[in-house]
Amino acid sequence: MAQKRSAFFVSDRTAITAQMLGHSLVTQFSDVLNFNEITLPFVDSVEKARAAVEQINREAAQDGTRPLVFSTLVQAELATIINTANALILDCFDIFIRPMEKELGVPASHTVGRSHSAIDFVDYHQRMEAVNFALRHDDGASTRELAEADVILIGVSRCGKTPTCLYLAMQFGIRAANYPLVPEDFSSMRLPAQIRGLRKTLYGVTIGPERLQQIRNERRPGSSYATLSNCAFEVREAEALMRQENIPYLDVTSKSIEELATTILHEAKLTRKIY
Amino acid sequence: MAQKRSAFFVSDRTAITAQMLGHSLVTQFSDVLNFNEITLPFVDSVEKARAAVEQINREAAQDGTRPLVFSTLVQAELATIINTANALILDCFDIFIRPMEKELGVPASHTVGRSHSAIDFVDYHQRMEAVNFALRHDDGASTRELAEADVILIGVSRCGKTPTCLYLAMQFGIRAANYPLVPEDFSSMRLPAQIRGLRKTLYGVTIGPERLQQIRNERRPGSSYATLSNCAFEVREAEALMRQENIPYLDVTSKSIEELATTILHEAKLTRKIY
Repeated sequence: MAQKRSAFFVSDRTAITAQMLGHSLVTQFSDVLNFNEITLPFVDSVEKARAAVEQINREAAQDGTRPLVFSTLVQAELATIINTANALILDCFDIFIRPMEKELGVPASHTVGRSHSAIDFVDYHQRMEAVNFALRHDDGASTRELAEADVILIGVSRCGKTPTCLYLAMQFGIRAANYPLVPEDFSSMRLPAQIRGLRKTLYGVTIGPERLQQIRNERRPGSSYATLSNCAFEVREAEALMRQENIPYLDVTSKSIEELATTILHEAKLTRKIY
Repeated sequence: MAQKRSAFFVSDRTAITAQMLGHSLVTQFSDVLNFNEITLPFVDSVEKARAAVEQINREAAQDGTRPLVFSTLVQAELATIINTANALILDCFDIFIRPMEKELGVPASHTVGRSHSAIDFVDYHQRMEAVNFALRHDDGASTRELAEADVILIGVSRCGKTPTCLYLAMQFGIRAANYPLVPEDFSSMRLPAQIRGLRKTLYGVTIGPERLQQIRNERRPGSSYATLSNCAFEVREAEALMRQENIPYLDVTSKSIEELATTILHEAKLTRKIY
């Protein structure tokens, strides 16, 4: 663990792409190295590029090792400046754009900000609509437009339905509602009446009882709602009900929100509406 | 526009990284080419890799051109299979991992799913907490723990505070609350009492009156709340109040949620808590 390394994510826009790719690449070395990750978004002028180079060089001097720099700089002039830094420069655009231009037989536009920009109002509107829809239909709050949902997540209280819906809305523009399964549903072993007719859009979420207990206990410490025996009972009954009704379900315990959302998108054959 | 091209985003995990990078790269050619974008997540077995190759080859035959394939396959065996497809393969891991191994002097772990996996329970918990915090403190809903917010977004109703807060929570683990500025605040030209003492955590959001009118009119068609004159009045007064109080603010009209959230993170010097 002796080696100290810095990793920079540099972009003339949000740096979200550089950061996401760069972060997943450095985690491939995180068993043996500790990275100090620094994001520099909106490096969109000669002055800012020079300031970034200074910061990278300072870090290099402090660490005693060259930083890694993951960059997505569309403007060639700025990339040239960043290239002068005392670092291993991994220019995501340069590395890919050249073979793409060769393959496609046309030059890249080298225009800034085609991705993650507000230029596309249709995308923006889709996303806002989807987020608002998810908020209006959180935890069975409104059943008015449930039939308009692309997907309705069901599961016991506090199993992770809400953030998964919001992620589906935010990232993919999917209209995702969620509806809780509660003890009354288990005694009748029937789906709640409000969603019974919408079986095709239902997707289940479940969770390990211990995790659920932990989460509920933070919310309502010492309540019977949060006991392990009650959590285990609810989870078992909810899973039995979903199996009986042939509703596919996923376990949130071993999956991140991204994995859940991507899996649901894929398995429910939903089409993402935004990029 | 004659050339038809497909772009595949292939991964043994969620494919979010491959898709984000690949999408922003193909948009560099979207002036002259139309891409059919296809995401193949969870390609995590030999069988699935072979099925992916078949799908890519079918698309190549249909299009009459080789697809572009952006892949993030950690497992070398699967990458080898994908490499046999009739396509330009742009293997994001392979391209970067080699120079990184050389620079760092250690081999990559080639372990699947270090990024976007639920393994890191601390990250998961941070994010859930942040999302729940944003939901509890949406639109001034609760003022109880406002002092615990990392940032409080202020602005007129329907200007984009809520999705920006949720994005900050989901993507960066930031505890973001939002509080509306309403006509009463403009007649007194003072900040609402509930947030007056929290000036350092306030960040403003504003919007073009025409856009605001459009958004409000969808919500409450024909209301005086949604008229252009009222929208223009509220926006002008809110901006004057924020200037008077020295609160930095951003215009959502020309920015995407990602840009807003990243800019606020950067300018308010907040530290992202999750990756």
